[in-house]
Amino acid sequence: MAAKYSREELRAMPPEQFRAIVRRGEWTDVTADASQNYGQANMIALPKEYAFEFMLFCHHNPRPCYIIDVTEPGDPHPRLVAPEADLRTDLPQYRIWKDGELIEEPHDATDYWRDDLVTFLIGCSWGFVWALEAAKATFRSLGDYTTNIKLNPVGRLHGNMVCSCRAFPTAEKAVRAIQITTRHTAFHGPPVHIGDPTLIGIDHIGKPDAFIPPWSTEPPEPHETVMFWGCGITPQNVVMQSKIPYAVTHHPGHMFVIDKLVEEMAFM
Amino acid sequence: MAAKYSREELRAMPPEQFRAIVRRGEWTDVTADASQNYGQANMIALPKEYAFEFMLFCHHNPRPCYIIDVTEPGDPHPRLVAPEADLRTDLPQYRIWKDGELIEEPHDATDYWRDDLVTFLIGCSWGFVWALEAAKATFRSLGDYTTNIKLNPVGRLHGNMVCSCRAFPTAEKAVRAIQITTRHTAFHGPPVHIGDPTLIGIDHIGKPDAFIPPWSTEPPEPHETVMFWGCGITPQNVVMQSKIPYAVTHHPGHMFVIDKLVEEMAFM
Repeated sequence: MAAKYSREELRAMPPEQFRAIVRRGEWTDVTADASQNYGQANMIALPKEYAFEFMLFCHHNPRPCYIIDVTEPGDPHPRLVAPEADLRTDLPQYRIWKDGELIEEPHDATDYWRDDLVTFLIGCSWGFVWALEAAKATFRSLGDYTTNIKLNPVGRLHGNMVCSCRAFPTAEKAVRAIQITTRHTAFHGPPVHIGDPTLIGIDHIGKPDAFIPPWSTEPPEPHETVMFWGCGITPQNVVMQSKIPYAVTHHPGHMFVIDKLVEEMAFM
Repeated sequence: MAAKYSREELRAMPPEQFRAIVRRGEWTDVTADASQNYGQANMIALPKEYAFEFMLFCHHNPRPCYIIDVTEPGDPHPRLVAPEADLRTDLPQYRIWKDGELIEEPHDATDYWRDDLVTFLIGCSWGFVWALEAAKATFRSLGDYTTNIKLNPVGRLHGNMVCSCRAFPTAEKAVRAIQITTRHTAFHGPPVHIGDPTLIGIDHIGKPDAFIPPWSTEPPEPHETVMFWGCGITPQNVVMQSKIPYAVTHHPGHMFVIDKLVEEMAFM
């Protein structure tokens, strides 16, 4: 279907307005253009029985999994970052997981919600992308990849890091991007790898794993500096690899837009 | 008793050696001079039943309570910051709490340990003090104070923030101290208040609350810039104010010296 809202309209929308069109089913696509300069979040809701373990896991793996809010069990309202929002309806698409298997990809999670679900929100790199844009640190997105970087295991939870990949046209812009993203700890912070993708187990750069369609799939050129950031799809890998009995997550690219400006949450 | 080790000897000791003299009962005093340039940690061990709630509480109150490690239940070995250490014996003094009341102040916590205790380590400002010293950002310590700053409550946990107070001789040094401590998120990060102590409920500046003897109790002079940092004694306030049934904490000033250099843990 033709997009109902233009890129410019999406960018100009305040978060509560964007979430309202999502809730009404008027936007079911990716959120890259939603609410310019506002933060976006990855979501994972897990049974309370897994909550402490998952929180520790995020603590031990802060680059892919920096927690920006945690709800009470069953509560769909994230009190710190968007208290008026509803996590069951305000994301354009969800994934429902059972015993580590993907079972549904609905646009509304109300029917899948449970009273024992504790929801974690994890900063998304589409937060820091606004800051890169503001500094003219231009790049090409090469998409998201599962890597061979082992996450620090905690209890029953383990898995491999997912990374987003960006190619910068000059070293100067790459250095600027490191400086800028370092300020944005809550949105993955600085890159976890620079350069040769095969060193982190990616032998198919330019053909991203099936998460989000990248804007370009051309492999990097010799003059480009390629950098990899921790990605908030990582918990979905953990759900699969650790066979968590039940989880509700965002669908990759279909993020939760929060009420906080990226700059409000900057480290310094 | 006369100190068995000089200030210079303490500073030159690597963490494992300092912890060894503590374990042998040869050092039972405050740790301000221990292992120059290494981090120090506040400790609080709580029943597992409180662990998730306390971890969330720290997440929501990162300035006083930035978590640098969490153990498995009953495990006295902090796997991230000092895996060879023993938290039951390697701090010079402890406090034992029952139903929010202080019941003992032993130099060894072995007899008070329980299999259900999850131990949290929280960065201590004596970490960033090495960095201030290295930059000649000199100051006078005015000690630690309970403030009227309400912590963000989580479940059964609530209380008031404890702050450490330092007076800087010039605004230039105060600005430098803000810049430096901003890098050291894990050790409380930047100050939470600048200037008038009465604005955070302290009407007795220069007469610190009975936590650690300060190096000077002279109240600030007009030319000094007074700044307050979140303090890792805060969880002990929370134990008292929330009447947690059982806890083992460090004794204020009698910190756990970790294997990580402060600079290794710096944010950038």
